Amino acid sequence: MNRNHKLTALFLKCRNLTESICGPLEVEDYVPQPIVDVSPPKWHLGHTTWFFEAFVLQQFAKGYKIFHEDFAYLFNSYYNNAGERVLRPNRGLMSRPPVREVMDYRKYVTDSMVKFLSLNQEDKILDIIELGINHEQQHQELLVYDIKYILGNQPTFPVYGEGFECKKGATENGFVKRAAGLYSIGADGKSFCYDNELAQHQVYLREYQISKSLVTNGEYLEFIQSGAYTDFNLWLAEGWDFINREGIQAPLYWHKINGEWWNYTFKGLQKVDVNVPVQHVSFYEALAFAEWKGMRLPTEFEWEAAAEDLQWGQLWEWTYSAYQPYPGFAKAPGALGEYNGKFMINQNVLRGASVATPQDHSRITYRNFFHAASRWLFSGIRLAK
Amino acid sequence: MNRNHKLTALFLKCRNLTESICGPLEVEDYVPQPIVDVSPPKWHLGHTTWFFEAFVLQQFAKGYKIFHEDFAYLFNSYYNNAGERVLRPNRGLMSRPPVREVMDYRKYVTDSMVKFLSLNQEDKILDIIELGINHEQQHQELLVYDIKYILGNQPTFPVYGEGFECKKGATENGFVKRAAGLYSIGADGKSFCYDNELAQHQVYLREYQISKSLVTNGEYLEFIQSGAYTDFNLWLAEGWDFINREGIQAPLYWHKINGEWWNYTFKGLQKVDVNVPVQHVSFYEALAFAEWKGMRLPTEFEWEAAAEDLQWGQLWEWTYSAYQPYPGFAKAPGALGEYNGKFMINQNVLRGASVATPQDHSRITYRNFFHAASRWLFSGIRLAK
Amino acid sequence: MNRNHKLTALFLKCRNLTESICGPLEVEDYVPQPIVDVSPPKWHLGHTTWFFEAFVLQQFAKGYKIFHEDFAYLFNSYYNNAGERVLRPNRGLMSRPPVREVMDYRKYVTDSMVKFLSLNQEDKILDIIELGINHEQQHQELLVYDIKYILGNQPTFPVYGEGFECKKGATENGFVKRAAGLYSIGADGKSFCYDNELAQHQVYLREYQISKSLVTNGEYLEFIQSGAYTDFNLWLAEGWDFINREGIQAPLYWHKINGEWWNYTFKGLQKVDVNVPVQHVSFYEALAFAEWKGMRLPTEFEWEAAAEDLQWGQLWEWTYSAYQPYPGFAKAPGALGEYNGKFMINQNVLRGASVATPQDHSRITYRNFFHAASRWLFSGIRLAK
Amino acid sequence: MNRNHKLTALFLKCRNLTESICGPLEVEDYVPQPIVDVSPPKWHLGHTTWFFEAFVLQQFAKGYKIFHEDFAYLFNSYYNNAGERVLRPNRGLMSRPPVREVMDYRKYVTDSMVKFLSLNQEDKILDIIELGINHEQQHQELLVYDIKYILGNQPTFPVYGEGFECKKGATENGFVKRAAGLYSIGADGKSFCYDNELAQHQVYLREYQISKSLVTNGEYLEFIQSGAYTDFNLWLAEGWDFINREGIQAPLYWHKINGEWWNYTFKGLQKVDVNVPVQHVSFYEALAFAEWKGMRLPTEFEWEAAAEDLQWGQLWEWTYSAYQPYPGFAKAPGALGEYNGKFMINQNVLRGASVATPQDHSRITYRNFFHAASRWLFSGIRLAK
Repeated sequence: MNRNHKLTALFLKCRNLTESICGPLEVEDYVPQPIVDVSPPKWHLGHTTWFFEAFVLQQFAKGYKIFHEDFAYLFNSYYNNAGERVLRPNRGLMSRPPVREVMDYRKYVTDSMVKFLSLNQEDKILDIIELGINHEQQHQELLVYDIKYILGNQPTFPVYGEGFECKKGATENGFVKRAAGLYSIGADGKSFCYDNELAQHQVYLREYQISKSLVTNGEYLEFIQSGAYTDFNLWLAEGWDFINREGIQAPLYWHKINGEWWNYTFKGLQKVDVNVPVQHVSFYEALAFAEWKGMRLPTEFEWEAAAEDLQWGQLWEWTYSAYQPYPGFAKAPGALGEYNGKFMINQNVLRGASVATPQDHSRITYRNFFHAASRWLFSGIRLAK
Repeated sequence: MNRNHKLTALFLKCRNLTESICGPLEVEDYVPQPIVDVSPPKWHLGHTTWFFEAFVLQQFAKGYKIFHEDFAYLFNSYYNNAGERVLRPNRGLMSRPPVREVMDYRKYVTDSMVKFLSLNQEDKILDIIELGINHEQQHQELLVYDIKYILGNQPTFPVYGEGFECKKGATENGFVKRAAGLYSIGADGKSFCYDNELAQHQVYLREYQISKSLVTNGEYLEFIQSGAYTDFNLWLAEGWDFINREGIQAPLYWHKINGEWWNYTFKGLQKVDVNVPVQHVSFYEALAFAEWKGMRLPTEFEWEAAAEDLQWGQLWEWTYSAYQPYPGFAKAPGALGEYNGKFMINQNVLRGASVATPQDHSRITYRNFFHAASRWLFSGIRLAK
Repeated sequence: MNRNHKLTALFLKCRNLTESICGPLEVEDYVPQPIVDVSPPKWHLGHTTWFFEAFVLQQFAKGYKIFHEDFAYLFNSYYNNAGERVLRPNRGLMSRPPVREVMDYRKYVTDSMVKFLSLNQEDKILDIIELGINHEQQHQELLVYDIKYILGNQPTFPVYGEGFECKKGATENGFVKRAAGLYSIGADGKSFCYDNELAQHQVYLREYQISKSLVTNGEYLEFIQSGAYTDFNLWLAEGWDFINREGIQAPLYWHKINGEWWNYTFKGLQKVDVNVPVQHVSFYEALAFAEWKGMRLPTEFEWEAAAEDLQWGQLWEWTYSAYQPYPGFAKAPGALGEYNGKFMINQNVLRGASVATPQDHSRITYRNFFHAASRWLFSGIRLAK
Repeated sequence: MNRNHKLTALFLKCRNLTESICGPLEVEDYVPQPIVDVSPPKWHLGHTTWFFEAFVLQQFAKGYKIFHEDFAYLFNSYYNNAGERVLRPNRGLMSRPPVREVMDYRKYVTDSMVKFLSLNQEDKILDIIELGINHEQQHQELLVYDIKYILGNQPTFPVYGEGFECKKGATENGFVKRAAGLYSIGADGKSFCYDNELAQHQVYLREYQISKSLVTNGEYLEFIQSGAYTDFNLWLAEGWDFINREGIQAPLYWHKINGEWWNYTFKGLQKVDVNVPVQHVSFYEALAFAEWKGMRLPTEFEWEAAAEDLQWGQLWEWTYSAYQPYPGFAKAPGALGEYNGKFMINQNVLRGASVATPQDHSRITYRNFFHAASRWLFSGIRLAK
């Protein structure tokens, strides 16, 4: 099967998955933007489509007619090189186009892409399409986060349905040990990776140990019950300000009802399950937990060097590594150069993958990144020492 | 026809009108809250229904079963006596219940009310129902404002349809003169009125003149073209700060495109019609216009004393009267006492009515009130001297 | 004694008083601006001086040489017609010029003014000088408020010294009654008054009663102890938001220490004296108190019509009258027209005078005005019914 | 000379230097806090004194009587373990104690310390004193920054006097090359260092080149003139937002007057000298400049590995290294553990030293750190490739 065929199959699988994630939603759920970080599902549907239209069809498909001249303005996210756009905080105000018209847009672009791919394109273009698929996969994960946030903030705590929930953690506990020495970090570039995983380079690590499994809700409850949220010595100064300013006393989605802890899940409000990994914690909380345990968080290099021996994939894991360019990092020219590089400041790297990560979208060199205060992502805690 | 029958007819007419105002909307349009002042149409539908459920059916209808126990929390507006509620800025986050469930709620309460009214209730209860109808009529007008704001802020400027547009102004111009003397102001209490229209009382007025017609777009364009938005001497200090902070240079919904002024109307983006009354101006703009003309705005007393000779009803008219209690004002006990009195500070009275005011909902003693910076209401300018 | 001589004497008395109010200050106390409303004492010293320089000496004194070309920029308050200026929130950042240079500025302008007045000026100019003296008297009162705020917010609660404290209230209690009828309100223009006191006009009042004396700390303590600060039914909606957002549970400067109420006075921290009038309350608190008592606040017209029978002069008294133009109000041309008129929105009128009001600066037609949330002024409560 | 004697000499030299930095100030200059980052000079004088009182004298000096019981509250900076304190944004409101009383406090503590040191203390205590001296040296540098900010924001641009200005840059240009390999980074702990410089550890670096000298004003002017402040492709997303939100178009203290660039220096407003290093740039600007040059900023490891061949010491140099713990980092127990570790998030490391750094306070392992948007520090740009 040649690359065109393979990509066509991946492309269609990806497009279908996006739509099936939205399956359980009411039309009304596609609209709100409860916080700036959380985009309306409708916007994700349109934006991932616009990406293919703007960077593939408009550039390379002869005679392609854009679906609607206003949609670039509505569905561009942050590509300055691609022109003006709706300001991010205003995405939730755009009731129009209605969902059904966005679905028409999706179908139109999907069909155009399939036709375009049937013409056997050159590798340079296929690379962009492969990036577009990975881009949509990233938005699939964000879509899950954002749907959870939208539903989880309804006073009625509606049920979404099955899927995207963590399972009981590892049966095997304990730590993996790595000896001091040089480790090779980053992607080799032979298969798809983002620019931020390059260049592959050597990192010298001191001897360290890293936990095989993630911290559970049960362990985190002990942390809460020990009074950790009121002990400033456990917290970064910014973290201490953050939890006090926001009144945070537990992970996101946790509610104390009649003295018991419940949390919102896709199945509705449930009692906190002490056996599954703790989820929806900020970097500040992860670090405070590690401090309380007398341990620390791993760096992203320590994580990658030990990844093969670890149980991972349920939750993204906060590392104590700032999101910065690897030596030899180079961004692409033009709009696609805005994909990663311009965010390399004041964010922390997370490694691994989560139950919301699409099947073909994880690898041990993958660098996810969020601000230290973010809690709506599917984040968890792994300890090191 | 006895009062029960009459109210039943009014009630049903009112309930239908609310729904027909929403007729042209997409489901998605029911959800957003683009600014705090603008509530989602879905919220208006639910809130006006909750009013009848909370203040009539739950109080007086034996065996009434509430539709949904969470709806009081979702649809209470500002009645502290009626318990906790969704914070006003968060109304746009509530994608649930979906519109169709709110419509079910409406039907359930409408039917229950009709049944309740068929049992010939006593006057004290009928008074509350009459208040409820007037309350829903007020929300009908707000619904029109809010729909216009939601649609008018879509980058695609969608068409709503016919209705709610001002017509060409008066053929008759000039001023009505009133002699100095005592005038009777306020409602006599013999037919329905709000508590803020009472008590009827004497006000002494000096001789004055008041314009028969409203200021037109054409006249307002001259004001703009004279540089009025950059001449601080025309403005109140707060008004000057307001237009500079917000970058205001024309009424709301006006857009300068290729050197020409267009404005958003329910028929979409249209060239500004110089013959219709200027609309969507703040009190600050109205007062600056009057200053520029070498005149002033009338007080609410001057308006009422001359109302019979005036052409009014297209737009609410800003007066230079603060919204304060009349002598002898007394608020009702309990939650309904929160209806008007607690807003009597830092707002200005508007008199008249607008094209969005329901048919049976205007009278010359009616006191509407908004903050001086409000522009999304259907406001206009009448001059005095 | 002709008007020139009289004004010279008044002018010098006024200039001296300003400086003696600052007598007890440390140099450092002249600098801070703890909230936007509170200006640094140094700024008041400069601003009142600049007023005479800009509106008298520069306009009319032949050969007058301005003291420093930057001072207009530093010491203009809000006169747009007089050019650019330091933004109000930045007054506390201006450590330069040092206090001694501002004192030199004062001396230079005072001397120039005395010389100028010795030349027997025409009435039009003397009117401006009289306005300038009244202007400085207003700032003397603000100076007292601002000094109290600056010192009262030091963790060390320093002592200022004698003066500016309320005395035990009236020995005579009870209410004055006024019959319904027309009353003449406003100044007759025969002696000095502000433009906002004109024109004198008729106001029709219904029969009313107004308390002879102000509410005391003792009465206010009962209000607090009754739980009034947690009973939403007593408050305007904006007032309820205000006290909750700011965490207000007592008048400004009150501190609960070991279960007892203390308040900051110019003599330092003292136990609250139940016999003196309650001070430093917002309009919201005054109105809630009246509501709690089953009474109301007077209008400014009711106050003025009964003023001669009332004990007043210790504290400015909140009225339930918005600060709006009287019929026939006309502002002066040019910069001095900005004195009063442009503030006639969203403020409430206070009547009377306070222990911080300079001797020659009170009359029964005087209209003071502040925002409803202001508490640092010397405000009190008088009831009506 | 034993360690007690040496430290006494260092201590006295340090205390004197702090006071001599304040020599040219007016009393008024000691008070303002124009932005949260900038503390009043008076506060620095008190805080550095409190450090010795709280961590040395109160802990170890028998019979020591604290100077004033309120001063801990006034002069604690961020040590939660040392109790409550004035909130940082409120430092500029504290006009009391007056400067002369703070000077008395300094003298009292200085004398007590000298007496205490004359008693030959043990090493554990001398370590804290050495930390206190280094702490005061850090504040000396901040004092210079803050004085420049306070004076540089006076509309009158007052002259401070000689000192703290950069000289014409290197005569020698070009780049130093370093081969790939393992480099030892961090302090060996044999002489004084901060905890954040430990543990010494190996870092693997790829081959790189680093400029011998800093970027000059002349080079930076070319960057400005090329339109760099309007070319989004050069900027991090946060940097682009930052310069647009704040309206930044040049380094801090630069003013364009009649088409020419001037900048505020301690000698007053001066024409920009193209030969001296560019100063007062944020990390965002430094990185955009590097991008524009087709180069990059060094990491802190690259800087340290080449430090001996570089000309440094005029300005702190932004590195593209986040401020994070070194492997093996351990914080001290108690309040002194709050010194460094709790700030290790969302800040960037700067290396080198500046003309405001005290003589004995620089070394090649020193890690300074500021937020990426900071511009009031003495920062400059060194390129790498």
